[in-house]
This record gives sequence, structure tokens and C-alpha cells, in this order.
Amino acid sequence: MIVSALATAVGVNLGLTVLLVSAYSLLRRRPPFVSVYAPRRPYAPLESWLAAAWRRSEDDIHAAAGLDGVVFVRIFVFSIRLFAVVAVVGVGVLMPINFMGDQLQLIDFTDLPSKSVDVLSISNVQDGLWLHFSAVYIITGVACYLLYYEYRYISGKRLEYFMTSKPLPQYFTVLVRAIPITDGGSVSDAVDKFFKEYHSSTYLSHTVVHQTGKLRRLLNETEIMWTKLKNLKYVPQRPSADNPPKKFLGLFGRNNPIGKYQKRLADLEENVRMEQSDATRRQEIPAAFVSFKSRYASANAIYIRQSDNPTEWQTEHAPDPHDVYWPSFSTSFMERWISKFVVFVASVLLIIVFLLVVGFIQGLTYMEQLEAWLPFLRNILEIAIVSQLVTGYLPSVILHFLSSYVPSIMKLFSTMQGFVSVSGIERSACNKMLRFTIWTVFFANVLTGSALNQLNIFVDPKKIPERLAVVVPAQASFFIAYVVTSWTSITSELTQTSALLYHLWGSCAKCCKREDSEAPSMHYHSEIPRILLFGLLGLTYSIVAPLILPFVLTYFCLGYFIFRNQLCNVYAPKYDTGGRFWPIVHNATIFSLVLMHLISIGVFGVKEFPLGSSLLVPLPILTLLFYAYCGNRFYPIFEAYSTESLVNKDIQEQSKPEMAEFFSSLETAYCDPALKPIQRSSNSDERTSPLLSSV
Amino acid sequence: MIVSALATAVGVNLGLTVLLVSAYSLLRRRPPFVSVYAPRRPYAPLESWLAAAWRRSEDDIHAAAGLDGVVFVRIFVFSIRLFAVVAVVGVGVLMPINFMGDQLQLIDFTDLPSKSVDVLSISNVQDGLWLHFSAVYIITGVACYLLYYEYRYISGKRLEYFMTSKPLPQYFTVLVRAIPITDGGSVSDAVDKFFKEYHSSTYLSHTVVHQTGKLRRLLNETEIMWTKLKNLKYVPQRPSADNPPKKFLGLFGRNNPIGKYQKRLADLEENVRMEQSDATRRQEIPAAFVSFKSRYASANAIYIRQSDNPTEWQTEHAPDPHDVYWPSFSTSFMERWISKFVVFVASVLLIIVFLLVVGFIQGLTYMEQLEAWLPFLRNILEIAIVSQLVTGYLPSVILHFLSSYVPSIMKLFSTMQGFVSVSGIERSACNKMLRFTIWTVFFANVLTGSALNQLNIFVDPKKIPERLAVVVPAQASFFIAYVVTSWTSITSELTQTSALLYHLWGSCAKCCKREDSEAPSMHYHSEIPRILLFGLLGLTYSIVAPLILPFVLTYFCLGYFIFRNQLCNVYAPKYDTGGRFWPIVHNATIFSLVLMHLISIGVFGVKEFPLGSSLLVPLPILTLLFYAYCGNRFYPIFEAYSTESLVNKDIQEQSKPEMAEFFSSLETAYCDPALKPIQRSSNSDERTSPLLSSV
Repeated sequence: MIVSALATAVGVNLGLTVLLVSAYSLLRRRPPFVSVYAPRRPYAPLESWLAAAWRRSEDDIHAAAGLDGVVFVRIFVFSIRLFAVVAVVGVGVLMPINFMGDQLQLIDFTDLPSKSVDVLSISNVQDGLWLHFSAVYIITGVACYLLYYEYRYISGKRLEYFMTSKPLPQYFTVLVRAIPITDGGSVSDAVDKFFKEYHSSTYLSHTVVHQTGKLRRLLNETEIMWTKLKNLKYVPQRPSADNPPKKFLGLFGRNNPIGKYQKRLADLEENVRMEQSDATRRQEIPAAFVSFKSRYASANAIYIRQSDNPTEWQTEHAPDPHDVYWPSFSTSFMERWISKFVVFVASVLLIIVFLLVVGFIQGLTYMEQLEAWLPFLRNILEIAIVSQLVTGYLPSVILHFLSSYVPSIMKLFSTMQGFVSVSGIERSACNKMLRFTIWTVFFANVLTGSALNQLNIFVDPKKIPERLAVVVPAQASFFIAYVVTSWTSITSELTQTSALLYHLWGSCAKCCKREDSEAPSMHYHSEIPRILLFGLLGLTYSIVAPLILPFVLTYFCLGYFIFRNQLCNVYAPKYDTGGRFWPIVHNATIFSLVLMHLISIGVFGVKEFPLGSSLLVPLPILTLLFYAYCGNRFYPIFEAYSTESLVNKDIQEQSKPEMAEFFSSLETAYCDPALKPIQRSSNSDERTSPLLSSV
Repeated sequence: MIVSALATAVGVNLGLTVLLVSAYSLLRRRPPFVSVYAPRRPYAPLESWLAAAWRRSEDDIHAAAGLDGVVFVRIFVFSIRLFAVVAVVGVGVLMPINFMGDQLQLIDFTDLPSKSVDVLSISNVQDGLWLHFSAVYIITGVACYLLYYEYRYISGKRLEYFMTSKPLPQYFTVLVRAIPITDGGSVSDAVDKFFKEYHSSTYLSHTVVHQTGKLRRLLNETEIMWTKLKNLKYVPQRPSADNPPKKFLGLFGRNNPIGKYQKRLADLEENVRMEQSDATRRQEIPAAFVSFKSRYASANAIYIRQSDNPTEWQTEHAPDPHDVYWPSFSTSFMERWISKFVVFVASVLLIIVFLLVVGFIQGLTYMEQLEAWLPFLRNILEIAIVSQLVTGYLPSVILHFLSSYVPSIMKLFSTMQGFVSVSGIERSACNKMLRFTIWTVFFANVLTGSALNQLNIFVDPKKIPERLAVVVPAQASFFIAYVVTSWTSITSELTQTSALLYHLWGSCAKCCKREDSEAPSMHYHSEIPRILLFGLLGLTYSIVAPLILPFVLTYFCLGYFIFRNQLCNVYAPKYDTGGRFWPIVHNATIFSLVLMHLISIGVFGVKEFPLGSSLLVPLPILTLLFYAYCGNRFYPIFEAYSTESLVNKDIQEQSKPEMAEFFSSLETAYCDPALKPIQRSSNSDERTSPLLSSV
């Protein structure tokens, strides 16, 4: 890529970004757009959203989006701090040195626009790489300091959040699985007997989980039927004793579609009520939510094995009642065990298939090859516009189309693994997406085209740095362009194009619209990996092609403002993990650092600077030791609370009068929503998330 | 190796074995031998030791050697059962088929003695390998069944042992490390404050660990001095107030060596007393043994993180007071952390160095090469007897000499890792020895001579079975001979050659003998890996060269009788881990099975039986799933006791009157032996181990 082409790309994307931002600023208060742009705050203040996003404090974000929202914003804060320093080093020091180099023979400054951007990269220098060498150490030092600072800050927040939270059911409750049943006894009796025997002084109550698959299917059908009726502009009153459905039906003929739907709905609702009321028809699942009188007692039941047989009475943290993913309970231990294995294989296969598809699609860009493959299409393909469409546009459309389904597939995989909470599913999907993104975007493009032939570089571990040193810098222009293009994509988050189209289309064709649009939830599992990818690109190219740095920094600044706005106006949190996404960010950054080290070691080797190469070898080792230290120092805080916290919090609340009420509500907190009577309302209260309304 | 040569080897070793057994049977009751052959039972019964070993029940062994002794004997029981079945399959079915083969062209039976033993191995057959194939499945099935049975049996024993044990300090006590100290406060105050705050209802008492390195050195010097004096036939009275050392010295001149020693001893003892009495001179270590009122309470303190800062107030199981390895406490967290890393590298290096040494020593067997290396020795080397000694005997002497030091080196490595108990050190050393043995004996010999050149077979994972299929069968004769030779070495365990020589020499030259010989402790970390090696050899060669099986079976039968005798008569247990060595045995057997599968897959591939190869592929996967299942089902039992056990045991003892006495003794149970007043006695009570005398 030549400098003028880069300038054009920057110009176009900057223009698009400004355009999108202006469109948003103008439209966001107009009536049809408000329900998409600010479903959580239908009456937006008049001040500029940018100013509002800037002035908003972390406490506001905490109140609006929970600790997970805060952690999400901290990813941008951390990245901006890191890349501000890295950009100063890279653009201020390394880029001038690269520019002074003589490898690509730049004669004078006026020539610059027609030169390759490589004159600003390490390719242009051969000797005197000591400053590049020092930069690797400086960047790693700064990154580790910031990582440590951030980990400490967020773990502090997590503890503070715990200490200031009001009593929440999940802290007092343990999920018990694999409950053994003696002949004839019920699960409920077994739980009662066991916990009264071994936790006599602290055991409070329990809720056994039931098989509700059939009921869930019935409820789903009811919901579909009700939506259909509602969209036919006729909302029936919920049938009740003094308003029986049969009489109601008599007014309409059997051939009337509304009447037919109403009959079906009434039948379905009757069915649901029968299933809900008749407990004997529901099969008990050997799992129960067991509540204790204190947080410390519930922790005891989690961390000490309960039974002499380790495969029975398995205990784990109970999720927030709203966060429970009930269908998971229907699977047996063996099914979960096997599906864990299957999912592992499937997610590796998905990456491989995706790499093959990328290879095939990149083949589409070569017209001749396509004609050779599909000779009968030759006549059509020879039309100029078709040819341009096929080679220029089709590949990226297919790729985007395929990529957009990946987060859902990963979430499905995680669901199959049997996590009992939505947050658990999304955290696991986040890890899967991260691996997927790094492989299919970074490595697939680095090992361009012949990806699978190049995979053998990973067979001989000693040659990895050397090979990376050859293939990574070659893709610098591509990734610079990729980062610049991403400005538009992150800004389109603001304009919510697809949600907007869906909403507008829904307003025209009412038939498919189900409920009044609730505020959507943030998809951390697809957003976090995307942001971390730019951190990876910034770090790995910081030494090789520092020109990427200002663009990466701009990306993070845009993201900072946009997501501070979106978290408060658009997304409503569905769960609160208390910041448990941060360790994923930490680990990914360590991975990026080590990859940067390997590339630098390789590049110095290729540039005949063996001393630099050798002196860099301790750096990845030190980084991994730092990683291990942080793992010891902070990670346990994200896994469980300590005796100190638990006992202090228990003591602090011991004498509070509201605890009696809380304990009585605890007994019914873990009730399968499929067992709750059907309630329908379309008032705007539903827009606030169940989580926050309960806080 | 030809059949007649094997017969000779069997004859010689059988002869030696019978000779050693007879010598032991004759000598074991003679006065100078009793203290070596039966230090624990100086008055041996008159019946044959073999009959006694046979009649002895498992309870007897439990009483004499603890659960670890039982587990050690169960290794033999398991191996005998397994190899009885495997030998029936191998010798009864596979060997005749091999013999009928036509690859090595055996013409008639009379020719047999001069034929290679390979006529009995798989090398002699080319087609019709379905029975060999079935044998792999049958052997794996039997092995897994027996492994499951044994794991269940031993974990049952472990639970039973816990439930029937009398109150032991280690169950009530937690070792707390990394205790943070506020300015000016002592460790003791910090512990008291913390546990009174967070474990108010269950906390009992604590003992802070002190820096006693100097004191230990002084005590050691005192001990040496005392031994010297004792061996000079003059045992002084311990100096006391009414018998001051100075007056005592006046009677002897300064030039009298006894007097000089006595003066030194008195000075040293005075020093020790001063150090012991003056608590202010001892530095506190931020570690303490904290005791609780119940077993369940102490488990709570172990499994729930104590402090908000995970690097402070770290808790772990306290070892048995006799099992504590006090010098470990002097190392800091950072030192332990680094030395873990260093030890890992060192133990890998040790294996590599040892492989190189083995390569060099095998070079000694080639005279020409030696002469080329050391030309000045040519004249000496040309003498026939020297040449025979150097090539035939020297290599194995050097190897044995070096090998005999390896268990001590491994124990030293484990000590450096900072384990706080002798049992922890020995269990870790056992794992290290196992890896070392498998690498230096099995793989080093399989990849003969050019070991390091052949290492590249591990780089391409797909080729491992194929390469193993070539190199493993080639070494069958060597390992058959190795197993036959091992009969003599396991029988020499009975005659205790080195201990006997040391004892006899000690009786002659009194000067270096220190104390009356105590019963030695069993070195599980060197014995268990040695036995497991024979299991590995038996399993990996069971399909390829079934001739090895009867010899392996004989080895285990010999071992069964010999160790049942030795555990009751010779060795006194130093600690009791409650059977925690078994998981090591289980894992090693699984490893052997998977290695057997890989070799079989390779052999069937080489023999052009691809269907058999492919159908074997699920077997290692199923075996690993079985391993994972056992890991879930049994391993946790060996790591910790369950709430069920702990609470039941606590309730069972709640009202016993002797508990008050136990709790008062608990307060002083964890006292550093360096702080106890010097006490010397040479009565025979010391022969019984401290562990068993306390039971």
C-alpha cells in the first residue's frame, strides 16, 4: 500500500465515521428512533451525547450497567493508556528512525505520497536496532504495570461491590447436583435429610429442580399464539373464572381466524395451568438449590466435598436467580461430560472449516480460477459489472455473512456444555470467540492464502519466531487498512443499523413483531474478543510497523465514547458476574505481549542482530512469570470470596431487621419461571432489566 | 539371544535367588544378624519366614507398617492378579501362535535351543493377527477392571482408617503461611487476632514457627561430639546444676582428648540451652500451626480462602507432627516459587545428563573407541584381564554406582521445592523417580545408543507408533534378561547386603558408629518406581514378546513374599500418608496401558494389518476416559476428607471423655524438636518408630 492510498482510506473512513456520528446525533431524539437509540431512557436529555458520555462517572456506569459494564469500559481505558504510551514510543521514536533508513531508498520528501508505507516500518532499517530493542522492553514494562494496576483496581471494585451489595440469593445458595436417591424416596427428602444431618445449624431451605421441558414448549407455543392474536389488533382478556374462554368463543364463528386462534390459545393456556398445578406429572431432577443462613455457611458447602463418594452431592455456586439457564438441568452428568468433549472437537473443527472457507472465498477474487471451476457461468461472468461484483464484493459479503453467525454458534456450543447460568455460557463463549478471532483474523491473514500449508511452521517450535518474522511484517499494510476500516464499524454500533432496519420493518409489517421491544442486552461474548483483537494487532505491530498505532489509538478513543453512551442508553444488563470478564482480557493481553516478543526475536534474527534476539529471550519468560504472579495474586478473587469478606459481610447484616424478610423470600427465589402463572403486561416497566429493578 | 542362553540366565539367577533365600533363612536368627534382619522384632519366632509371610493378614501389615505398607503390598497383589491373567493369554494363546509362524523358519523342535527367542515373539508371524488384536482388548479390559477394583478397595480402606483412627493432631490443625504482620506486632498476635475474629467459635490455639537453623546446627554438633565421646567408651553424665561442667573438667587435663571433647560438649550444650531458653533471640517465621475444636472446622479453614489478598493467610493441611520437615519453613515464598522452577529444569537436565552418561558408558564396551580416546592407556588396556574388566564389568559398575545416587538426588530436589512434610517430599520424589526410571531404563534402552538422534521420533506425533513398533520389539531379549536378573536384586533386599556390611564394619570400627541402629524406614520413593517399571515392561511386551510374562510374574511373587516379611521385621514407618501413594501406581499403570496400545497399533501397521491398527485407535481414548472417570470418582478421596466423614467422626467423638486431654495435648503437639531439651537414652524403645509408638 502506498502512502497516498492510506491517506485516501483514512479520509474515506473518517468521513464515514463523522457522517454516522452526525446522523446519530441528529436522529437520536426523533420519535421512531428513540426506541432503538435509547430504549432505556425514552426521554433523552438535550445535551450532546458526546459531552454526556464524557462527563458520566464510573458510578453512573456501574448503576446503569453493573460491574460488567464498568469492566467493559475499563478495557478501553486500559487500552487508551497503553497505546498512548506505545504510540509516543512508536511514532515519536521508532518511525523517524525507520524513515531515516536506507533500505527502500526514499530520495526526498516530496516523493513520500507515492512510496510504500513500508518506508515507515522496520523493513526500511538494517542496522542500529538498539532503540527498537529498548522499545520492546519499555512497552512490555508499561503494559505489565498497567495490567497489574487494572487487575488490582478491578479486584478492589469487585470486593467493594460485594461488601456494599444488599443480600442477594446467590450468595446464600448452593447448587447441589448428582443427588443420590434411595428406593422410593424423593429428591426433596434426600436433600432435607442430608443437609439437616451435616449442616444442621446453618441449613435453611431448598428448591428441587423439575423436568419442565414439556411445559417450556407449551409456554412457547402460547406465547407465539398470543403474539399472533395481538398483531391481529385484537388483544383478548386473559381467560379467567368469571370470563371463561368458551363463552367468549361463542361470539365468533369457528371459521373466524381470530376465533380459531383464541380457541387454540385458551386450550394451550388450560394445558399450561394443568401442567403447572399437577406436581405429580413433573419428574424431579436430582439437582436442588439449597439455601443457608449465612454466606459463609454456603461457601463451606461449596468448597468442602460433601460426600464420601465424590460423584455424589456435587456442589457449586448458585447463579443469580434471573441468570439460571433452566434447560441445562435436563441433561445428565454423562451427557454433559460427553458434550464437553464433543464441543471441544467441534470448536476446533469450526476454526479449520472457517479457514478453508476463507481460502475458498479468497479464490473467488481470481476470475480465471472461478471460470475454470464453473465453466457454464463463463458468459455471465464476462459481463463487466457481474465480474466486479463477484470478485470485489461477493467475497467480503460471504465472509461477513458467515462471521456474523459465529458468536451465536459459539454460544450454542457453550450452551451444549451444560453451564447452568447465562453468564457462564457467555463467558465460555467469549473465550471461544477470542480463540476463533485470533485464529481466523490474525493467523489466517498472516499465513495468507496457503494457510494450511504454512501450518507446519508450528511443528518445529524453534523456527516459529523466524517464520513469524517473515510473515507478520508482510501483512502490515493489510492490518493498517483493517484498523482504519474498523472506525466505521465501531461507529455503526452507535447507529445500530440492523436493529434500526428490524424496528422500521417491524413497524410496517406488524405481523411478525412480538412484544414491545425490550432493551437488548450487551453481547459481551462477541464484543470483547473484537476489541481484544485490536489490542493484539497494536501490540504485535508496535515494533514492526508503528504506523498502525495512531489508528489503533483512535479506534479505542471512539469505542470509549460510543460504549459509554450505549451502556447507559441502549443495553440493559441481563446478569452481573461481578467483573469476571476481566481475567479474559488480562490473559489475552499477556498472549499479545508474548507474541510480540516472539515476532521481535524473529525480526532481530532476520535483521542479523543476534545479540538483540538473545537478550530478548528472557522477556517472554519474565512476562509469563508476571502472568503466574497475577494468577496467584488476583485470579482467586474472581473465583470466590474469602472468609474475611464473607464473615465480615455476615456480621454486618446479622442484626438488620430486613434480613427476616430476605430469608423468607429466599425460600422461593429459585423457582423455575416455567412454573410461574402466565402474566402478561405491556407497560414500560419491562424495559428496565429484571436485574436492575431488583437492586 | 538364543533359547539356550536364556535358559542359562534363568538357571544362574534362580540359583542365586535360592542361595540368597537360604542364606537369609539360616542367618536371620543368628545374633550379629538379628539387628539387621529384624531390628523391629529382635526375638523372631521359630517358624519359617516364608510361611509367616504367607499367613500374615492385611491387618497385621496395617498394624506394622501403616496404610502405606498395605498399599505397597497391594501393588504386588494387583500385579500378580493382572499378570496371572496376562500370562495365561500370552503364554497360553499368543506364544503357540507365534511359534507356529513361519517367518523365522524353525524346522523341528530339537532345533529349538539354538534358535533365537524371537521364534516365540510376534516377529515370527505375519498373518492372522486377530488373536493378538483381541488380546490387546482383553488385557486392557482386565487391567482396567483390576485398577478400578483396587482403587475402590484402597479408597475404602482410607476412609475406614480415618473413621477408626483415634484423634490425631493433623486432622484438627491447619498450617497457615504468609501471615502478614502489622508494624510492631508479633506473628502470634496477628494469628490470634485473625482467627478469633473469623473463626471465633472453633479456634483453639496456635504454635508459631521459629527460625531454628542455628539451633539445629548446634544440636547437630552436640550430637556428633556426644557420639565421639560415647565411642571412646566414656559416656559423661549430662551436666546439671548440681554437677557443673567446669568442676567436672578440672579432674582431667586440657590435653586429655576426652577432657577436650567433654569441654566442647559442655560448651555446646550450654549454648543450646541458652538459645532454647531465650525466645527473644529466635526470629519468628510468618507461619503457624493453628488448631481447631473439630476436624470440620479445620477443613473449613483450609478450603475457603482466608484473606481478601490471596497471597496472605494461605492455609494448607498440617502434616503429622512427626512428619513435619522443619527446615522448609526457613525459605520464603519467593524462594520456594523460584526453586520449583529450578527443580523442574534440573530434574529434566538430570535425565538428559544421565542419558548422555549411559551413551558414554556404552561406548566403553567398544575397546577400539576407548583406545582412540585415551591413547596413553593402550599398553594397559591390551592386558587381557584389564580389557575384560573395562569392557565387561566397568560400565555396569559405573551405571549402578550412579543410579544408586539418583533417589537421593531426587529427594534433595523435592526437599528444595519446599514441602513441609517428609511424606510430601517422598511422594514428590517418587513421581520424579518414576519419570526418571521410565526415561533412563525403558526409553534409553529402547532407543539404544543413539538415544539423542532418535529423540526426533517424538517431534512428529503421527509417526510415534510406527517408530515404537520398530524399536521396542528389537529390545525384547534385553528386557527379558533384565527381568530375569532382577530376581537376584529383589532377593538381595532380603539379605540387606549393604546394611549388613555397614553393620559388621561398624561393629569392628566403633569410632564412626553413632547411635544404636534404629529400624530403617522404607524408601517408598525408590522402591515403588522400580516395581512399576516391571509392570511397564510386562504390559508393553505382553503382545510383542509374551515370553517375558512368566518372568515378570515370578518377580512379583518373589516381591510379594519378601516385602511382606521386610515390612513387618525390618522397616519402621516414618509417616503415614493414608495410602496416598496409590494414585501414583494407578497413573503409571494407565501410562503403561496406553504405551502398549501405541506399540500394538504400530506393530499391526508394520505387519500390514491396517484394520487391526485402526480398530485399536479407540482403545487408548477409552483408557484415558477411564482414567478421567477414576480421577473424578476416587482421586478426591485421596486429597481430602468429605463433610460426611468429618462431621460423622466429629459427632462420634464429641462426648468422649478423653477428648479434653487430647485438646490440651494439641496445644503443644507442633513443637519444633530443636526447641525440646536434649534427652539421651539408648534403651531399645527407640527401635519402635515414633509414629507407631504414639498409635
